[in-house]
Amino acid sequence: MELKQPYLLFLGDAADALAAKVAQGIKTWRPEHCLGQLRLPECQADVGLQELSVSAAARAGAKTLVIGVANRGGVISPAWIEVLLEALEQGMDIAAGLHNKLTDIPELVAMAQKHGRNLFDVRYPTQSYPVANGKKRSGQRLLTVGTDCSVGKMYTSLAIEKEMAGRGMNVDFRATGQTGILITGSGVSADCVVSDFIAGAIETICPDNSAEHWDIVEGQGSLFHASFAGVTTGLIHGAQPDALVLCHEPTRQHMRGLPDYALPDLATCIEANLSTARLTNPAVQMIGVSVNTSALSEAEAMAYMDKVESDLGLPVVDPFRQGVARLVDRLLERV
Amino acid sequence: MELKQPYLLFLGDAADALAAKVAQGIKTWRPEHCLGQLRLPECQADVGLQELSVSAAARAGAKTLVIGVANRGGVISPAWIEVLLEALEQGMDIAAGLHNKLTDIPELVAMAQKHGRNLFDVRYPTQSYPVANGKKRSGQRLLTVGTDCSVGKMYTSLAIEKEMAGRGMNVDFRATGQTGILITGSGVSADCVVSDFIAGAIETICPDNSAEHWDIVEGQGSLFHASFAGVTTGLIHGAQPDALVLCHEPTRQHMRGLPDYALPDLATCIEANLSTARLTNPAVQMIGVSVNTSALSEAEAMAYMDKVESDLGLPVVDPFRQGVARLVDRLLERV
Repeated sequence: MELKQPYLLFLGDAADALAAKVAQGIKTWRPEHCLGQLRLPECQADVGLQELSVSAAARAGAKTLVIGVANRGGVISPAWIEVLLEALEQGMDIAAGLHNKLTDIPELVAMAQKHGRNLFDVRYPTQSYPVANGKKRSGQRLLTVGTDCSVGKMYTSLAIEKEMAGRGMNVDFRATGQTGILITGSGVSADCVVSDFIAGAIETICPDNSAEHWDIVEGQGSLFHASFAGVTTGLIHGAQPDALVLCHEPTRQHMRGLPDYALPDLATCIEANLSTARLTNPAVQMIGVSVNTSALSEAEAMAYMDKVESDLGLPVVDPFRQGVARLVDRLLERV
Repeated sequence: MELKQPYLLFLGDAADALAAKVAQGIKTWRPEHCLGQLRLPECQADVGLQELSVSAAARAGAKTLVIGVANRGGVISPAWIEVLLEALEQGMDIAAGLHNKLTDIPELVAMAQKHGRNLFDVRYPTQSYPVANGKKRSGQRLLTVGTDCSVGKMYTSLAIEKEMAGRGMNVDFRATGQTGILITGSGVSADCVVSDFIAGAIETICPDNSAEHWDIVEGQGSLFHASFAGVTTGLIHGAQPDALVLCHEPTRQHMRGLPDYALPDLATCIEANLSTARLTNPAVQMIGVSVNTSALSEAEAMAYMDKVESDLGLPVVDPFRQGVARLVDRLLERV
């Protein structure tokens, strides 16, 4: 699936800024794709784009209304339907990454058909993927892995893509989750693929490329997460990474959603990821660590990162505080 | 899904004995479930049951016609349809583990509805599974793992179940592939589950049980198979095994379907499986090795197994040549 740009970002009735984090992600990483935002009267979020009505957005050339808001349970709120119908009438596609599907709402389906528009439920794969073949591909790949879920793998990947693009390198972010797909307009939601085809789906989204090209593949889950390590394993094997970056959140008390499971220590986690990745690329290297230190003070964050850097002998950065230039420097030294 | 016994095994137009290996598996491991076999005139397979027409089987009380034959591509042959329709008319359900679905054939669906019968495509999950919670469950579990796909994990698991049941132990085989499901009447085809739910599906099929009970969980794939290791990882984590048995085929030249990938050595494979399994059960132990030596002479087989046994310090058996008593002995010593 390939979403058409530019976007009208729909913030709906977001209860707070966090509820609109998908819209914020698109605005942060692909501002050039965003024409404006549309907020319902009760909306408590604002990503700082110009306010556009559906008809104003259509006149300005918006091709897709992206639902940039999530509410509890991932449902499509009845309060949104009127706006969505209007967007279809005005010639836009609609894209969403929610648990519930746009295509399960008969009035949206009917209106889309009437106007020849598309409804994209990016969480759900629409193509069938092959079983992975494990063959060495041309081009180069970096994959983010994590000590846990939701520790900054997407953010780190997008920051690395931006840093490399800024240096004039030939680089593409490859999305493996719904937010990443909405940000970049394509990819596959790895955890929604039938398990036989996880590695094959990832092979498909980062295919053969020119020798100097880098795919920055968004990781998912963790080898140490008892619910999702299968997804992570297939993703690592399919990505065939030349380089890994480990992502970590240092204040987490236990694995996300699993109160009985402690986080792995970083050295153990690095060795396990390298060991798994070597199956499809024996030359893989860990090039650095990306830490989300948002729960720490500046002084605590710096002390923590200094300690990890000296323990592991790898560059350690918080991409939000410091950027990822040192990770890209290490990548280039290594090549 | 729960299939009703007893079965009429349909061998169709099987081109050779291998094409009817599903029927042979059911006959071998659950003879008490089999009323008879039905073969079309051109059938080249014979599992040695009494020949029954559909109506004779129905009169004898058959509850399910099981398609025990596979042809290239896993399609449902047009030559079978007449028999399948007759079975539905005579009050039987139909079960198949093929790639193509019974439920995609309108005339079968119509006939099943008319007579209130069920069509079971056991390869495809019909229930939704939860995300795994990783919580320690009561009861005990043994899981078969492999150096590669198709090295005897199902056969070994069923042999262990039979050996333990013969000793009066409280034991259940838990099927994770279509053949195993058809043999035992329930289970989940792990590689067809959406990848987020692999571990959760396996947790579901081997739930809390009495302290002395053993689940013998059928393994799938291999941690060293670049296409399927994600499935294997999720399965290991969901099974929470107390004991592992490593299955191996010693004459294989490369990983199945992957000409560029060599098989792992046994010690490396054992350590990788233990390391993965320790995440959800730190007390896991490898209790032995099951080798499929069918491609070796008796003398070669014995010499090979002696060598492996002395290298690894674990009991090594070919379950077909020698049975699995020594694996169960080791399991009981350990407890």
